[in-house]
Amino acid sequence: MAKYTIGLDYGTNSARALVVEISNGAEVGSAVRVYTHGKEGVIISRDPNLARQHPADYLEAAEIVIREALADAAKRVKGFKAEQVIGIGVDTTGSTPLPIDEDGNALAMSKKFAKNPAAMAWLWKDHTSIAEAEEITALARKMRPEYLAKCGGIYSSEWFFSKILHCLRTSPEVFDAAHTWIECADWIPAMLTGTQRPGDYKIGVCAAGHKAMFNAEWGGYPDAKFLAKLDPKMGALRSRLNDVAGDISESAGGLTAEWAEKTGLAPGIPVAVGAFDAHLGAVGSGIGPGVLVKIIGTSTCDMTVAAGEKKLADIPGICGIVKGSILPGCYGLEAGQSAVGDIFNWFVNYIQPGGAEGTHEQLTRDAAKLAPGESGLLALDWNNGNRTVLVDQRLTGLLLGQTLYTTPAEIYRTLIEATAFGALMIVSRIEDYGVKIKEVVNCGGIAEKNPLVMQIYADILGRPMKVSRSAQTCALGSAIAAAVVSGGYADVPAAQKKMTGLKPKVYKPDAKAHAVYKELFKLYRQLHDALGTKEWNGNLYGVMKDLLAIRAKARK
Amino acid sequence: MAKYTIGLDYGTNSARALVVEISNGAEVGSAVRVYTHGKEGVIISRDPNLARQHPADYLEAAEIVIREALADAAKRVKGFKAEQVIGIGVDTTGSTPLPIDEDGNALAMSKKFAKNPAAMAWLWKDHTSIAEAEEITALARKMRPEYLAKCGGIYSSEWFFSKILHCLRTSPEVFDAAHTWIECADWIPAMLTGTQRPGDYKIGVCAAGHKAMFNAEWGGYPDAKFLAKLDPKMGALRSRLNDVAGDISESAGGLTAEWAEKTGLAPGIPVAVGAFDAHLGAVGSGIGPGVLVKIIGTSTCDMTVAAGEKKLADIPGICGIVKGSILPGCYGLEAGQSAVGDIFNWFVNYIQPGGAEGTHEQLTRDAAKLAPGESGLLALDWNNGNRTVLVDQRLTGLLLGQTLYTTPAEIYRTLIEATAFGALMIVSRIEDYGVKIKEVVNCGGIAEKNPLVMQIYADILGRPMKVSRSAQTCALGSAIAAAVVSGGYADVPAAQKKMTGLKPKVYKPDAKAHAVYKELFKLYRQLHDALGTKEWNGNLYGVMKDLLAIRAKARK
Repeated sequence: MAKYTIGLDYGTNSARALVVEISNGAEVGSAVRVYTHGKEGVIISRDPNLARQHPADYLEAAEIVIREALADAAKRVKGFKAEQVIGIGVDTTGSTPLPIDEDGNALAMSKKFAKNPAAMAWLWKDHTSIAEAEEITALARKMRPEYLAKCGGIYSSEWFFSKILHCLRTSPEVFDAAHTWIECADWIPAMLTGTQRPGDYKIGVCAAGHKAMFNAEWGGYPDAKFLAKLDPKMGALRSRLNDVAGDISESAGGLTAEWAEKTGLAPGIPVAVGAFDAHLGAVGSGIGPGVLVKIIGTSTCDMTVAAGEKKLADIPGICGIVKGSILPGCYGLEAGQSAVGDIFNWFVNYIQPGGAEGTHEQLTRDAAKLAPGESGLLALDWNNGNRTVLVDQRLTGLLLGQTLYTTPAEIYRTLIEATAFGALMIVSRIEDYGVKIKEVVNCGGIAEKNPLVMQIYADILGRPMKVSRSAQTCALGSAIAAAVVSGGYADVPAAQKKMTGLKPKVYKPDAKAHAVYKELFKLYRQLHDALGTKEWNGNLYGVMKDLLAIRAKARK
Repeated sequence: MAKYTIGLDYGTNSARALVVEISNGAEVGSAVRVYTHGKEGVIISRDPNLARQHPADYLEAAEIVIREALADAAKRVKGFKAEQVIGIGVDTTGSTPLPIDEDGNALAMSKKFAKNPAAMAWLWKDHTSIAEAEEITALARKMRPEYLAKCGGIYSSEWFFSKILHCLRTSPEVFDAAHTWIECADWIPAMLTGTQRPGDYKIGVCAAGHKAMFNAEWGGYPDAKFLAKLDPKMGALRSRLNDVAGDISESAGGLTAEWAEKTGLAPGIPVAVGAFDAHLGAVGSGIGPGVLVKIIGTSTCDMTVAAGEKKLADIPGICGIVKGSILPGCYGLEAGQSAVGDIFNWFVNYIQPGGAEGTHEQLTRDAAKLAPGESGLLALDWNNGNRTVLVDQRLTGLLLGQTLYTTPAEIYRTLIEATAFGALMIVSRIEDYGVKIKEVVNCGGIAEKNPLVMQIYADILGRPMKVSRSAQTCALGSAIAAAVVSGGYADVPAAQKKMTGLKPKVYKPDAKAHAVYKELFKLYRQLHDALGTKEWNGNLYGVMKDLLAIRAKARK
């Protein structure tokens, strides 16, 4: 009898359950539900920085999507039974912390705080805590620089402690009513397994390590003395933060009888420790040492892992390096580009070029007819700042080389190329610090839908671009974690070997195109360093002239 | 009885006659005629660099437009008679040389050469002579660097000797059949006055000085030894080039009986020595020491004059400095921007932004709502290279500061600002070398039609922008020259005082806007120097950040 696991994937707008056959990774059932509260599942306000979610939605969605996914599987697989599901894995957005009481219940689920956004889950993209992030960064820089070295040098307004401190400053009644705070990625497994009481649950190293300065090297979370400098109440909170951390190969507990009844699953089946969607997406794409997984959508997440035996040096500009955050026992490296698809969308939706010819589809077709270097253009991919390697939000876009005849398709292609050069900068930075990338696997909407983008990436990176077989890599990653904690496999790599795969189409670099792009990348790098670093010194006199020379050659 | 003169203005596509009352500059009659041959008056070929005109068209047009302009004046002014016209002035495009025979007749007007483009007038924008221009530049740099110092350091493919040398190289039968070569600006007055026989006619210092390295300091045209190095036949040509030069206050002769009959004018009335359209446009806009005249169209011509008593130092990057080329006795300075209106046209016609909102009119309206610095954008106006002050065609455009929300109107305004910064660079360069600019007078299509452009220029240059009263400043300038040679005025300034004027609307700089633009100009200059000069050394780390800071202030 076949065995299955469920991957529970909590996104920004909806939750999804995926039923996966563990012997081969076949996705046999799935269901999605948009969260009940707010606008497309996100609670907003007049402050554009505010983005919250109601924790009740998470529980409601779990019940519904698991039931529906099981029903879907039953429809598609003859004789399928819910008892064949032997485990659950969970991934969520993050950092998405929420305040809970002494029983581990979300404050927002009490009558008193039901409508108070401060008592809800603070969604990853909530930016209300900018001032607090700067305060934490400044304090750490002075007092604990080692905290920042693991997260790219700047503590973000999107992260755990910024949000808690902002709550303390602006909604003290919520802060005071909360016993402690927990990441969504930890709370869901805790609720499913009845371990939600503080002291009972395990936290995931992924969320804690990447977003809460948690590191075994200094004894877990930042110390109370550091936190107390921000506010004595933050210092006091330190002892109420659960310290027991695990990775996705560890069980958070067994499914409670109550949840078994709600969902139709067998009670007691293990639930894996939770992690972030991108990290489990990397697992679902077959990540391992030497493999870079690029999740390409509006922005990118670039993830790789390094064997954990030898201590890994800090890599400047890489936003997170956390042991066990992706694969147990390996260092998980997280990098990314602040905008990729968003830049193409900006050009199409805001600039609206070329009249009726200005769709993504038509621009892609026209851009595909151009040879590398033929336009004489070069761009920087910084319209939304630069996450890796400059870690600088105060950067903007640049387009150079336009004449009186430059066309929208030429610009569109140049913007694609700019994001590929940005991707190459990330690969180069990682490799410069001794972590070799032997294979690149892409997933996400753009990787699935735009062959031109993939081909340009192959030509610019000078490596084959592979695409993950699954369209639901995050949920699949969670299902893989479930397959390990339920004993289906000895470890994550063993499960990945059977449960993940690649699409047959591989985008191979064209040697001629790559040679041109090597020349262009030199110029990109010159602009990148001249505009993005304080250390660069020189002039850019040759840039436009070199572009014209490359153009002349390409047009011959 | 009122006295009148006629300004004959030869443009790229058409010729115009303007009848002007000399006591007050009133424009009482006019007529325009598109040339007969070619496409809109320009003879083209499969080589996109070729642009010629048939000299027969010049004579045909003169006859027709003078007759029609006189008829127009007779309709509009009661009792007007052709005998009241006391002189003619002529302006043409240039450098537009043509080969003539021993009698001064255009070779193209002979049966043998009627259809040979090499025997026609080589229109200013003919670029077939790029290789020859480079050859002349290289030779002058080595042998006669002083020749280049007066024309910005590079001898252009648009100019006199490049074109003649190219003819010699590629159409030797035409070169050999020609007795000599003459500028269109000199040939028309010669034909009208019957002085077309080589040795009889005067050449204008304007064309010779700006385009043919003619300078009294070294005895007129380049010496035969220099020209012979290009080709022995070029050296031999030197003795057949007419050396007697004059300015626009000098008479080329009296109107022949034949032309008097053709046109209805009185025989013997003086015809002024010819000059280029832009230079006589400056005269018609009221140029004088301390006045900068900007002719703003697809590109710009920026002209000023400096008192001629003291020898004027060479100004690096100014494309021409020629004594008497604009006002008799003064140094004429010619500068310009390679593209202004052309950049706005590129954005509207090639990028076609914003769907139905992408017209010049709508973009102007939307751009007018933006405050200086509000967009966070900055551009370089080099889509067609930089004529002044870098004298470098191998430069291209740049746009910097775009985000995921940048709009077409923001870019449109930024492109206008970029051209204004380019204009400020020119003013600064001229003033840095001791030639003070006290007043700026604009003319041309954009100055007449786009108040937003004029206001931004006022705010960026920090000076009032005045606009010339006449919409036909070139023809008016020619009529002023005619008024002087016919004795209506003692000199050109006296005629200008009565015959030129300004529109009542003056665009005054806004102090607040100017303060913001001063900050932005610092950043423009940084980009300009970093990308345009070999001497610059530093980094551009602050540019994007300063733009964001300026933006934040502007949005408050």
